[in-house]
Formats: sequence, C-alpha cells, structure tokens
Amino acid sequence: MSEPEGLNENANAEGAEGMGIYDADGVVSAPFLAHIGAAIADRDTITLRQEVGVLHQSEVGDLLEALLPDQRLALVVLMGDDFDYTALTEVDEAIRLEILENLPNQQVARAVEQLDSDDAVYILEDLDQEDQDEILAELPFTERVRLRRSLGYPEETAGRRMQTEFVAVPPFWTVGQTIDYMREEQNLPESFSQIFVIDPTFRLVGAVDLDRILRTKRGVKIEDVMRETRHAIPATMDQEEAAQIFEKYDLLSAAVVDENERLVGVLTIDDVVDVIQQEAEEDLLRLGGVGDEELSDRVWTAARSRVPWLMVNLITAFLAASVIGLFDDTIEKVVALAILMPIVAGMGGNAGSQTMTVTVRALATRDIDIYNAGRIIRREMGVGLLNGVVFATLIGVVAATWFQDYNLGGIIAAAMIINMFVAALGGILIPLLLDRVGADPAVASAVFVTAVTDVVGFLAFLGLATWWFGI
Amino acid sequence: MSEPEGLNENANAEGAEGMGIYDADGVVSAPFLAHIGAAIADRDTITLRQEVGVLHQSEVGDLLEALLPDQRLALVVLMGDDFDYTALTEVDEAIRLEILENLPNQQVARAVEQLDSDDAVYILEDLDQEDQDEILAELPFTERVRLRRSLGYPEETAGRRMQTEFVAVPPFWTVGQTIDYMREEQNLPESFSQIFVIDPTFRLVGAVDLDRILRTKRGVKIEDVMRETRHAIPATMDQEEAAQIFEKYDLLSAAVVDENERLVGVLTIDDVVDVIQQEAEEDLLRLGGVGDEELSDRVWTAARSRVPWLMVNLITAFLAASVIGLFDDTIEKVVALAILMPIVAGMGGNAGSQTMTVTVRALATRDIDIYNAGRIIRREMGVGLLNGVVFATLIGVVAATWFQDYNLGGIIAAAMIINMFVAALGGILIPLLLDRVGADPAVASAVFVTAVTDVVGFLAFLGLATWWFGI
Repeated sequence: MSEPEGLNENANAEGAEGMGIYDADGVVSAPFLAHIGAAIADRDTITLRQEVGVLHQSEVGDLLEALLPDQRLALVVLMGDDFDYTALTEVDEAIRLEILENLPNQQVARAVEQLDSDDAVYILEDLDQEDQDEILAELPFTERVRLRRSLGYPEETAGRRMQTEFVAVPPFWTVGQTIDYMREEQNLPESFSQIFVIDPTFRLVGAVDLDRILRTKRGVKIEDVMRETRHAIPATMDQEEAAQIFEKYDLLSAAVVDENERLVGVLTIDDVVDVIQQEAEEDLLRLGGVGDEELSDRVWTAARSRVPWLMVNLITAFLAASVIGLFDDTIEKVVALAILMPIVAGMGGNAGSQTMTVTVRALATRDIDIYNAGRIIRREMGVGLLNGVVFATLIGVVAATWFQDYNLGGIIAAAMIINMFVAALGGILIPLLLDRVGADPAVASAVFVTAVTDVVGFLAFLGLATWWFGI
Repeated sequence: MSEPEGLNENANAEGAEGMGIYDADGVVSAPFLAHIGAAIADRDTITLRQEVGVLHQSEVGDLLEALLPDQRLALVVLMGDDFDYTALTEVDEAIRLEILENLPNQQVARAVEQLDSDDAVYILEDLDQEDQDEILAELPFTERVRLRRSLGYPEETAGRRMQTEFVAVPPFWTVGQTIDYMREEQNLPESFSQIFVIDPTFRLVGAVDLDRILRTKRGVKIEDVMRETRHAIPATMDQEEAAQIFEKYDLLSAAVVDENERLVGVLTIDDVVDVIQQEAEEDLLRLGGVGDEELSDRVWTAARSRVPWLMVNLITAFLAASVIGLFDDTIEKVVALAILMPIVAGMGGNAGSQTMTVTVRALATRDIDIYNAGRIIRREMGVGLLNGVVFATLIGVVAATWFQDYNLGGIIAAAMIINMFVAALGGILIPLLLDRVGADPAVASAVFVTAVTDVVGFLAFLGLATWWFGI
C-alpha cells in the first residue's frame, strides 16, 4: 500500500528512527522487520510500545504475518496490555489461532473486554468451545451476555457480525437533548454514523443520520427528523444477503433486530466490505475448484481440501476416456484422430467455461433473472454458433493442411461447431439449473460443463469420423 | 432482495394497490411490472409519479432493467423532472447509453444539474465527446468547472469517482460555530460523515468525524478534535488502490487532493464498494477467459470479446497436438494410450488451475509477498506431490485393471506424478512471474498453465510408454 506522498511524514516521524513500516512496494520493509525482530530478541518493551503501539491495527496485522511464528507470540506477550488485539482480526485464521492458543485464557479475556463486540466475536468464534467458555467466564456479566447472544446466532449471519454497542434514544427527545446526552455519556461506541430511535420496549422505530442531527435546530424533536427504518436486518439473516442490502441501498450502517423486532445491534459497512470481499473470493476459489482454504494452511490441509474436486474430475475424465474407448478401431486406423481430438474437446471446454463464468457471476450479483434469462440464453447460443463457425473454419483448414486430408478437415470442423454450440448451452443452462435446485453454481458448474464438452467433443469428432470413413 | 419481514409495510402501503416491487425471490414482481407497463401505455403520469417516484434509485434501476427497451425511454420521458436520474447509475452500461442517447441533451443537462457530482460524472463519462460538451455547455459555470475537472482525470482514478461537494471549515472555528454553520447553510451535500479542515489556500489540514463533533462541547476548537489525515487520496490514484486503502483502514470517506495537496473532493465508501465488486468481477471474468463484457452486450460484441482467449488457446492446443504427433507410431501400436492420455493432461490441468486460482487471488488481495512466497511455493510443491501420488495410485490401478496391463498402470502412474508436480509448480510460478513483469496474472495465467500441463502430460505419458515398450 503506497501512502500518499507528503502526507505521512508524521506517521514516519513517529518511528524512533524515522522508519516507515512499508517499503515502496507496499510490503513490510525489511529494515523495519529487522528492527522489530531485534527489539523482540532484546525484550525491549519500550521500543516495541513506541514503534508498534502507534501502528494501525491492519499495519500490526501485516507486521504479525511478516514475523516468524515465535516472534509473533513474543511480540504480543512483551507488549502486554499495549497490544492492540483488533490486529488479530486482520491476520489469517491459522495465525490468529496459533497466537490465541498459546496465550493464557485470562489474558485473552482481558483483551476481549477492551474490544468492540464484533471484533470480540470474530476472535472468539473460531476457538474451541472449552477455551471460549473459559474466556467468557472471566468477563463482566453484561459483556458476557452480549457476546453469548452474538455467538448464539449461526455462523455467517448478521448476528455474528453485528456490533452490540450503539446509540439509541426515544422519539420524543429533542435534537438538543440528544446532543447533550452524547456530550455527557462516557460509554458511547468508538465510532458511529447514525442514532437509532426505539420505543420503551426496545422496539426499533427509526434512525437518524448524524449529519441530519447536525443540520437541525436544537428544539426539533427526534421523531420529526428520523427516517423509518426500511432496511432493518434480522439477526439470523445470512451475511451475504445483508451485504447485498447494504450495496443496494448504499447504507453505512443498519439496525439488526431479533425475532421480536427489538434492536440488538448494528451492522457497519466496514464489516460488510469484508463480507463482500470474502464472498467474491469464495466464488472465485470455488470456480477454480478450491474450497475454503487459507494461505497459511499446511500441505496436508491444503492437499486434502483439493481432493474432492480432483476426484470428481477423475470420474468425468474416465467417462470421457470410455467414450474414446468406443472408437479404438477407428483410432488404430486413423492415428491423426488421436492427435486432433484433444483440440475439439479443449476448445469446447474453454468456450463453455467462458459462458459459465459470465453466468455464475451474473447469478452471484443477481444480474440475471426471469426477465433477461431467455435473452441471455439466446445470446449465448448465438455466441457459441458464431465462434463455433469461426474456429471450425480455422481448425478445419489447419488440420486439412497438416494431414493433407480434406475429409479430416471437414470432420473436425463439423465436430467443432457441434461442440462449441453445446458448450455454450451447457455453460449457461448448467449454472442456471444448479441455482434453481438450490445448489451453489460456483462449486459444481465447472465439473459438469467440462464433462459435457469432453464427452460431446470426443463423441462428435470420433463418431463423425467412424461414420464418414465407414469404419 | 427480500425485505425484512414486518418492517416494510410502510413501503408497500405507498403503492396505490399495496403492491411491492419485488416478489418473494427478490425479483421485480410480474404484477408490478404489468401495472407500470399499463400506466406507461396509458401515459398515466400520475400513477407513474406515485408508484415509481417513491422507489429507491436502485429499485428504479431494477425496474428499468425489467422493462422493455421502448418502455424504458417512455417512463423517463413521462416522469419528466420527477424521474430520479441517479437510477441510471444502477443499470447496465448498454441500457444507460440507450436511454441517454435518445433523450434531448437539454433534458440530460437539467437532470445532471440535480445530481451529486460523482453520479453526474458516472452518467457523463461514457457519452461521446460531442454530447458531453453539449450537456456541459448547458450547465451553470461552477457546476461545469467541477465536472470538467473530474472528467479531466483519467478513467478509473479517484478523481473520477470523487464527489466534489463536501463540508470544509478552518481549524480555528469552534465546534459550536461549525454546528451553527451546518444549521444555516443550505448548500450542504446530501449526506456526509466527516468534515474536512483546510487552511486559507484550501490545503488539507485534517478531518473530524461527525460523531466526534457531537460528543464535544461547543467551545472546543476544531483543531483540537481533528485527526491529521494520514489517508488522503491523490486524485490521480487508481480506484483499485484507493479501495485497498479504504479496506485497510476501515474508512467511510477520504479526502481527495490534487497535486498541490489542495482538497478537491471526497471519496465515499459506497462508491468504493462498487469498485471492490467491479475489481473482483474483473478478476473472476479474466480467469474465465472473458474480457470486459456486459450482460446486455449483443451476440456480435460478446462473441468478438471472447475470440482472443479462444485463439490463444487454439495455438496451445495445436502445440499439445503436435507433441502427440511425435508419438503416432506408439499410439498406432498401443491404442490404449490414446484413450488414457486425456486423463493425464486433464488432471494436471485441474490441479494446476487450483494452485493458480489460489495464487491469483492472493496476488489480488496482496496476501502473498516476499515473506511468505517461499513458504507458499514449497507448500504447493508438497500439495502437488502428495495429490500426485494419491491420484497416480488410483489411476494406475484402474488403468491396469481396465486394460489388463500392469505396465500401462505403472506408466500412467509415473506420468501422473510428474504432471501433477509440474502443474503445482506452474500454477504458482506462472502467476508470480507474470505479476513480477507487470502483466495481469488473472488474464494470462490460465493459458500458460494449461499449455504446460497439456504438453508435459502428453510428453511424459507417451514418452515413458515409447521408452518402456521400446517402440
């Protein structure tokens, strides 16, 4: 990350030696890393507090990831209560667990108490039940109840991601009273962009953005400036769905309500941005045949997570091979077929995966629906046919020239048109069908599309050849 | 998008017939669409203003996309100045241009004048120069200058995405003066979450979040509550880089400065969320071999945009075919080789694309750097070897049983280990190298990885067989 020039002298000057954490490429700089490493080795807590204490949580996260495993724990222990535990929300899950599991639960509890509830939940949720209970037991009652409630919601829901600290006022207060309350109250959330309006039973009535408060005269009642909340998020809503509401309505934060419509927390855009990134990443990795895997996973974990996809592909590969097996006599007589057949299957596979990628993405962003599905299916058929004809001509000419055989050129051209048309159809219909039956199109589409283009490719090419050459 | 139950009665009640825009699946409901279609046909502007006028801009966007092309323009024309032109920022580029090009430039100019500058730029930037100039000429001087300045920055930079409306105050003002100014001033941006602090030459000094203002007593000076801005964004910075700064530092908005560090605008998180989505989409589509294509593109445009990738793949497919061609004698004697060879190449391709997907994503999110690249390369080699051995055993046994030939089983197993190891190496090194030389790894990696796994797969399998069988 390159800092804007000229605006970070201050940040740099804070390092004892005027040293920035990042080099010109935006990577943790080697001198800085060596400097911190030396301070850790010397148990020089003063330097560590001075140099690491001033960093932003995500910078501390980058630093932790760049340090060696032993140094990470040592840094946290040496900095004691000056360590910013929100930095743990910025590192890989494996690194976070490695640090947390090596710290005494009492120390983790003391840290968790200082955090906003969403960060606390983020840190606690991946620990095993026993550690979680031990840490929660160390916390003050209200804190414990709040965190238990958040942790009680299913993983990847709004309830897990929400912050339970928020500002709520009754509708009959005036703007002046509200401002005075905020000036006096010590226990406000660290930052917030709207104030919620609730009735005496904690039921959500509306919300007011802070800029609205600031533009309004002191005497005006809150109920006269509030908006009714159209976009309250049920705590059990999937985080991806919540993120889509944020995107759709350009929200900065939204109220989270329980099953009785009582206000239980607030979901903020910074957490939603993480969700959006995570969901986009999931789609990309799934399309590439990789599950929920982290860069910090070890060989064994990563290898195992990739087996299912390879296994399914192996089965479809044997299916395609058995199709070739049907034509062993033909291949024995015309070896050129064996040489050319991977081209037909491969080009179909590529064309199919182009269509599939477009479709999977459009499904993820809900850009495809009943109003345009028909048009898009027709378009993809047109694209398949058009590119089929273009590449069929090209391949036909090259094959005929290579093997000095016009028949072979004609056969491969015909097979090519068939396979690219089928690839287009498969590339759009397979994800749409998987989506319709409730399966995740990003996970399963590629396997089916490749199976179809392999089988159809080999069958069309070898079948046409067998028929034409009369074998 | 499913609205939270029980909280949208109000929204629904606003429709004359209590009709929601979305059905249970979150798609524009057929009855609503028919109702609006009828109102358009009847030129019933009262109904349209009542029903469409109350919708959120993104809902109007969804409605436009669901309508037929003729209805879209008619709706905009019939609603006149009651049409919310920000809805045009929510639709596909093709639909936006289709509407804008059929409207008189005077009307577009009147609409643009009402918009926040970021939305205005979004709508103007894709129009051709002539229309752009004509529309700008219709605008008041200051508006024109602001938009020209934004449009003067290169595409996909912070300068293009920024909003030129913001609140800026001098550091010597008190909190009270600032609040009074906001209560009196009519020309404030539609919404904002921080106030900037500038010196008399418009140079950026700092910023104050609104919640900080609200918690502070009236007498306190702004300079005592402001933060120095560490994350000001140069207007020429690429929007993706700006988005990464937002993510890293959890910003809601950031000052945009010109080359003299003068404040020229503000970049807000809602625009950044769009950028994040767009960049994630680009990576996904590029990995799938699709360029910058829109769902609304026609057959011809879409087909043409996919040709380059297919063409490059065709060349590598012929390369792989010519490798097979080296062994035509061997295949003629042992046809089983032709049947099994796609399995070796295909499994290598899948394993390679798994590694490549992980690598490309890690590069995009900057999760891979000099500190962990070595470890990740070693990990991928381990994964390739481990899964290579697992699947080699499996395929060896199946092939030996199928063709009743232990030699064949041994040969395919050996070829499999070689190819899956090479696939892992290629899957990580190719994207890393492309990134190092400044090429986009998402665009080019897949082609090279497949080329490597095809060539090595055929070469290893057929080569080993030729040597073993002594052909």
